[in-house]
Amino acid sequence: MRKLEILKAASRVFRRRGLAAAGMREIAAEAGLSPGNLYHYFHGKDQILYFCQDRALDVLLSALAKTRRSRKPRPQKLETVLRAHVLCLLDELEGSVAHLEVEALPPRLRRYVIKKRDRYESGVQNLVAAGVRAGDFEPCDPKLVTRAILGAANWTARWFKPEGPQPASEVADGLARFLVRGLRHGDTPGDTSVRV
Amino acid sequence: MRKLEILKAASRVFRRRGLAAAGMREIAAEAGLSPGNLYHYFHGKDQILYFCQDRALDVLLSALAKTRRSRKPRPQKLETVLRAHVLCLLDELEGSVAHLEVEALPPRLRRYVIKKRDRYESGVQNLVAAGVRAGDFEPCDPKLVTRAILGAANWTARWFKPEGPQPASEVADGLARFLVRGLRHGDTPGDTSVRV
Repeated sequence: MRKLEILKAASRVFRRRGLAAAGMREIAAEAGLSPGNLYHYFHGKDQILYFCQDRALDVLLSALAKTRRSRKPRPQKLETVLRAHVLCLLDELEGSVAHLEVEALPPRLRRYVIKKRDRYESGVQNLVAAGVRAGDFEPCDPKLVTRAILGAANWTARWFKPEGPQPASEVADGLARFLVRGLRHGDTPGDTSVRV
Repeated sequence: MRKLEILKAASRVFRRRGLAAAGMREIAAEAGLSPGNLYHYFHGKDQILYFCQDRALDVLLSALAKTRRSRKPRPQKLETVLRAHVLCLLDELEGSVAHLEVEALPPRLRRYVIKKRDRYESGVQNLVAAGVRAGDFEPCDPKLVTRAILGAANWTARWFKPEGPQPASEVADGLARFLVRGLRHGDTPGDTSVRV
């Protein structure tokens, strides 16, 4: 329980200061702990970052699995996955782009997180590819389109302000709808090639 | 001239190691300089990062200005801007997501870069908004859509591998086409509200 509170505090510091500048001292202060006490829970910034990233990926993977089992049409499934993705990133706990900075992890932890992240990305890509095969989506390069879609979703963590005018749910809805719409278009005038 | 070579070397280190882990020593080694010699050109990592970001924004702003003056239809203008944006990010010199990590800069430099970046984003947003007003694009929230589009473009710097199977130009083309397509769609079945 204490660990979760520390991760939340760390997320706020990562978001406010950027990953490079965030220090254990500041994370401790944000969590209301002495630095020594913080080290009792986490050995260092690497370990905190690893727990943040791992937790965020667990949330994303479980939302994806749940949606894939549902009986919605594929475009709606993809919208649901993207909405959950954005909400996870903008949530108080997972809400920091630091959760996507795998390069900042030491090699062993990085490999583990990358493997998990690749599993998630493949799942989304499979959803896009299945939609293309079934004619739900326009022919496209599912890998590139998946990266575009997830990139747009991930980038929200960089600009979203919890105190801003638009709540996270509106951002998530609008983004998911716009991105799925790009996949469903088939009548761009003067463009007979729809392959992206 | 030497400065430009150092920025290129720094970009490679930022891309390889992530911003947090990149050190002046490693940047010096990559540039073929002694650490002392590197400090002769740049006072520290902050200053290198600032020059990288400032230069990338100059490239983006000039591509935007040139495209806006052209006589192309608006969707094509937006595609051209996005293609130039991705190419700038994936270019050997500007090619690092570090160039987008304004939080890592000290306050004074950060304010300067953010102002320039906001100027660029407003320019792209104006292009989207003008397209909506003229009926070139579907009704949408131009601010949110612009952020989605630029987010997808920015994220390429995180996953693109120069040694990978797809050249930067193909990624730029595919991404720009997919993203502009999302703006032009008008016949999503069962969705009468096209506002995103």
